[in-house]
Amino acid sequence: MIIVFKPRIRRKDEAAVLKEIKRLGYQPHIMRGVARTVVGAIGDELTHKSLESLITQFPESIESVIPVQKRFKLVSREAHPANSTVTTRGVVIGGRKVQIMAGPCSVESEKQLLATAHAVKAAGAAILRGGAFKPRTSPYEFQGLGERGLKLLAKARQETGLAVITELLSEDHAGMVAEYTDIIQIGARNAQNFQLLIAAARTGKPVLLKRGLSMRIEEWLLAGEYVLSNDNPNLMFCERGIRTFETYTRNTLDLSTVPIVKKESHCPIVVDPSQGSGRADLVMAMCKGAVAMGADSLLIEVHPNPSEALSDGAQQLSLQEFARLMTELQPFLAAAGRE
Amino acid sequence: MIIVFKPRIRRKDEAAVLKEIKRLGYQPHIMRGVARTVVGAIGDELTHKSLESLITQFPESIESVIPVQKRFKLVSREAHPANSTVTTRGVVIGGRKVQIMAGPCSVESEKQLLATAHAVKAAGAAILRGGAFKPRTSPYEFQGLGERGLKLLAKARQETGLAVITELLSEDHAGMVAEYTDIIQIGARNAQNFQLLIAAARTGKPVLLKRGLSMRIEEWLLAGEYVLSNDNPNLMFCERGIRTFETYTRNTLDLSTVPIVKKESHCPIVVDPSQGSGRADLVMAMCKGAVAMGADSLLIEVHPNPSEALSDGAQQLSLQEFARLMTELQPFLAAAGRE
Amino acid sequence: MIIVFKPRIRRKDEAAVLKEIKRLGYQPHIMRGVARTVVGAIGDELTHKSLESLITQFPESIESVIPVQKRFKLVSREAHPANSTVTTRGVVIGGRKVQIMAGPCSVESEKQLLATAHAVKAAGAAILRGGAFKPRTSPYEFQGLGERGLKLLAKARQETGLAVITELLSEDHAGMVAEYTDIIQIGARNAQNFQLLIAAARTGKPVLLKRGLSMRIEEWLLAGEYVLSNDNPNLMFCERGIRTFETYTRNTLDLSTVPIVKKESHCPIVVDPSQGSGRADLVMAMCKGAVAMGADSLLIEVHPNPSEALSDGAQQLSLQEFARLMTELQPFLAAAGRE
Amino acid sequence: MIIVFKPRIRRKDEAAVLKEIKRLGYQPHIMRGVARTVVGAIGDELTHKSLESLITQFPESIESVIPVQKRFKLVSREAHPANSTVTTRGVVIGGRKVQIMAGPCSVESEKQLLATAHAVKAAGAAILRGGAFKPRTSPYEFQGLGERGLKLLAKARQETGLAVITELLSEDHAGMVAEYTDIIQIGARNAQNFQLLIAAARTGKPVLLKRGLSMRIEEWLLAGEYVLSNDNPNLMFCERGIRTFETYTRNTLDLSTVPIVKKESHCPIVVDPSQGSGRADLVMAMCKGAVAMGADSLLIEVHPNPSEALSDGAQQLSLQEFARLMTELQPFLAAAGRE
Repeated sequence: MIIVFKPRIRRKDEAAVLKEIKRLGYQPHIMRGVARTVVGAIGDELTHKSLESLITQFPESIESVIPVQKRFKLVSREAHPANSTVTTRGVVIGGRKVQIMAGPCSVESEKQLLATAHAVKAAGAAILRGGAFKPRTSPYEFQGLGERGLKLLAKARQETGLAVITELLSEDHAGMVAEYTDIIQIGARNAQNFQLLIAAARTGKPVLLKRGLSMRIEEWLLAGEYVLSNDNPNLMFCERGIRTFETYTRNTLDLSTVPIVKKESHCPIVVDPSQGSGRADLVMAMCKGAVAMGADSLLIEVHPNPSEALSDGAQQLSLQEFARLMTELQPFLAAAGRE
Repeated sequence: MIIVFKPRIRRKDEAAVLKEIKRLGYQPHIMRGVARTVVGAIGDELTHKSLESLITQFPESIESVIPVQKRFKLVSREAHPANSTVTTRGVVIGGRKVQIMAGPCSVESEKQLLATAHAVKAAGAAILRGGAFKPRTSPYEFQGLGERGLKLLAKARQETGLAVITELLSEDHAGMVAEYTDIIQIGARNAQNFQLLIAAARTGKPVLLKRGLSMRIEEWLLAGEYVLSNDNPNLMFCERGIRTFETYTRNTLDLSTVPIVKKESHCPIVVDPSQGSGRADLVMAMCKGAVAMGADSLLIEVHPNPSEALSDGAQQLSLQEFARLMTELQPFLAAAGRE
Repeated sequence: MIIVFKPRIRRKDEAAVLKEIKRLGYQPHIMRGVARTVVGAIGDELTHKSLESLITQFPESIESVIPVQKRFKLVSREAHPANSTVTTRGVVIGGRKVQIMAGPCSVESEKQLLATAHAVKAAGAAILRGGAFKPRTSPYEFQGLGERGLKLLAKARQETGLAVITELLSEDHAGMVAEYTDIIQIGARNAQNFQLLIAAARTGKPVLLKRGLSMRIEEWLLAGEYVLSNDNPNLMFCERGIRTFETYTRNTLDLSTVPIVKKESHCPIVVDPSQGSGRADLVMAMCKGAVAMGADSLLIEVHPNPSEALSDGAQQLSLQEFARLMTELQPFLAAAGRE
Repeated sequence: MIIVFKPRIRRKDEAAVLKEIKRLGYQPHIMRGVARTVVGAIGDELTHKSLESLITQFPESIESVIPVQKRFKLVSREAHPANSTVTTRGVVIGGRKVQIMAGPCSVESEKQLLATAHAVKAAGAAILRGGAFKPRTSPYEFQGLGERGLKLLAKARQETGLAVITELLSEDHAGMVAEYTDIIQIGARNAQNFQLLIAAARTGKPVLLKRGLSMRIEEWLLAGEYVLSNDNPNLMFCERGIRTFETYTRNTLDLSTVPIVKKESHCPIVVDPSQGSGRADLVMAMCKGAVAMGADSLLIEVHPNPSEALSDGAQQLSLQEFARLMTELQPFLAAAGRE
């Protein structure tokens, strides 16, 4: 930690701070600069107490306290220099092939789900997405089919051979959801619901962690740390847009996270352009950008009849649009050296 | 709902949209304007399907779809024109007296908690706060004492007569937490963890719902709707700052929510200046502003020795600072016609 | 405009509002819905007075007023369905070829500028960028070489045949800057400095308008309207990142603006990945994404020795890095059907 | 500056960085910590080159570079420990009396302005506000009366004895505006239009600097530095709300800036609740909060007939509402120890 003193501090006050730093288990190291005196406090910041409260304790003496260590460990590139991959039902995410996860926002009926599953498989997707439990802003909106939805996903998996991803909303459902799905999705609203992250990790299933609406990248990586530190190495990060002042799109898809997560972490990075923009007419361009920038996988909402969708109709592609997307993506996959 | 057509749309395309609107259960009502044709779709938006997906279905014809009904019901002033109050252990929140909730960020030890409880009571607080389960950005930080912390809160309540508020983090703990506390707090990170909101509501205890880091006011009111629609009328909203680009403070306390929540809802509004700024040196001014603007209650972090705190030391007041705050607030309470 | 009444409004109050709407030049059109009564006010919103102040005038009766017309005209696709192009010194921006604008953040010396100009030309750039007047957050930072910088740009142009783009900071310099440059850049901090936009437009030179730090897309298009409505058809929009809560990058590059500006406007869209991220190590990925999503041009900061740069060293590429970027971009240009 | 090395860096690479730090004029000071090696670079950061570009130069070696000095000087409390005051026409801003600046958003006519001026004077205001040059998002909106508006302001001043504040939009108008006004306002959109700030400073008139829509507090203080360093000591900061994701209000008024600016700077702080919320029905509560938190002055939009206003009708108070506001503010002024 770096402690910056206020200008013109008295030696007596300085000594009091140094004594406290030592008491808290750090070795202080003084640097007298031109305009400020600065103290480097030597000690492992991950195991010692934070010194940030020194500001409160010595408000007349200290101007700021700056941490120097990164706070995430297991998810970091330093901990695992090579890319890690997640494999489920023979599908490898994080390898050379860019895996496509596609399906409806919500599972609504057998007919809707199976039609979608067969179509996305035919177009080249490897994983079927579909929400059985839906987090809705209002209690008066469709909340998902629950376990019946999970059973339909399992049936679609059996019929098509696609792997399945679905969202976990409640700790109480962790066991039930794990029974039917291949990948557990943690949604943006629950990205810092640490109890849910732990429950998901403990099922042993791969976890896809969406970025929270106003989550800094460091916080996202730290939330991922809750999965890895609970003995589950199969973690993927999923960028799905952040909340900004812009109103044209539902969210602002932050594609810079693709190279950043690749740089800071070994875990695969997935992009969700459907949630990321909230507009089906932007999904194609978003997918091309994501692939060009190095995304390992795309998570795309597809519905046989978007205007009939029980949730988020405006952002779902039709089966035809999805097939066209898969074709148009090819040259960009090739340009990126991917399949 | 209002459907805005693109300019120069053909009558044939218009007819197709109108037919679809009817099929979805609304009565269309056409207005031909100078530059745009607009359709009012008559029907109850809370019970019918959303028309927003019409944009996807008719991308060449429709420019935008605008809802006109407010989405929240039970929390709204319309539903309950008078102020509602929440009463627990004889403490009335939302009445003439501005109730002060004070205590440490985390319950750390019996000594720390009892010292704080006695001091805040002596200074005029009616409710003791203290976290037993702490949501921490990193899994390597102090996570709270758990049930032992709850027991200490109960003991402090018994010794001082203060009511107690503490945070609920996990659905699985709802019963246990409800056993020891008088008010259940839902934290900012869980403000859209709807399963947790439902679990909290069902304990029957009053619920204090903090605003999420990037939650719009409408979404906050809708989250409150999850409490009221689960048969729990004792809901308080708590402004605790939103996330912005500003880095001087930890959060940007949005005091405009005080008059806005009072206007849109009948529920009491609480302000948390400690989380709201992240800096103890701003808490005094924040409290004065909150009281002047009409807050019903303040939630303040107080610690016998902030520099020793196991969490968020930089934003906790010392016992002396808290006593001074309570004194300095008096003229502002009087100016606001409160006690 | 759409006027939404509050529930249970009396007919007398309704009549007063309708009378006022007529007085302001609109034709009211009533729709009685299930939960709300709504009025469509027919009239051209671009020529009539706004009705938004009706809320102030009738606070007990009106809940909201919603405009339905788009506010921009000349920049819109509706006004000019085909793509427009900007041509300067034989360089066409907005056509099949993706034009690269490259050069130092600031013009610092003849040697620095000429070395960069020759190198970026050799690597394939068509336009040389370089700041002669620099907007600096602090008055104590390097403010640019001023007219001497402009003369160096002109010299570099003469030597290399590259077209030149530089930023205009002051209305008073419009004539002088126009004398030396081929494209006038309006920076993010001045994106709503409308007097400067008008002064730039009136020079007759093409104008590149950067997006402001917290500018909504609609406001950006409207700022462009200041250029076109001052008889200058040669306008380009330039995405350079917006300000968000994220601190890992200097700005959040919003690549969704590429397809959105293409959809809403006929003007070319340029992407600046250097300002957009503030980190040289992200520029490569950002450029690939921008090209894949349809950008017409890239604006890239290049310096012979970034660590010696007098401004923004952290985001400038070296000459070698730039040459490598140009090579690596080729497959993505091909995939996008561009050159 | 603090330079943080990556873990496990080789001594050879370390030496190269140290050599470069020395070459750039700083004295390096090494601290070897548990997980990281950190270098303090001793030297005045305001006069030396920034070391931030070291990251670009040594990407394999350096993780981050952290400045430790505050960048603002003349506006800082350190430079001038006592409060400074601004006096114009006998009105002292920053003293015991909270000065009220009130008047219409735009000067529209002699009748409108004089009616407002007399009314706000009668209610207790000391300064008349009114825009003669208006920055409008769209070129098709009312742009102000220009010099005719300035003449009306001068006339109102003569009739009422009120001091006058109006906005400067163009460097070219600095002389003209200074001729008619007592205080020059720099609007939010021009808060980092440094040329305009310099032109305003050089008129010698007091300058009121509004906070930009997404300006960090440090940047705002630095923009003020442009005024003080151009030999004009009469600077006021004006909080007017920032842009956030919230859509209920037009801006989010950040009242925490009141105590923060008071703490960091000696200059007076003014609050504009009209722009700050965009809603007349919130102005009263905002004013009470601002006074309670220590604001030196309030800037309030008042119009004889808000629904007829040519700009921003929704946020202007009527004359009656303003008079009531002035009365209701009294107890809060008393509570704050102000007049």
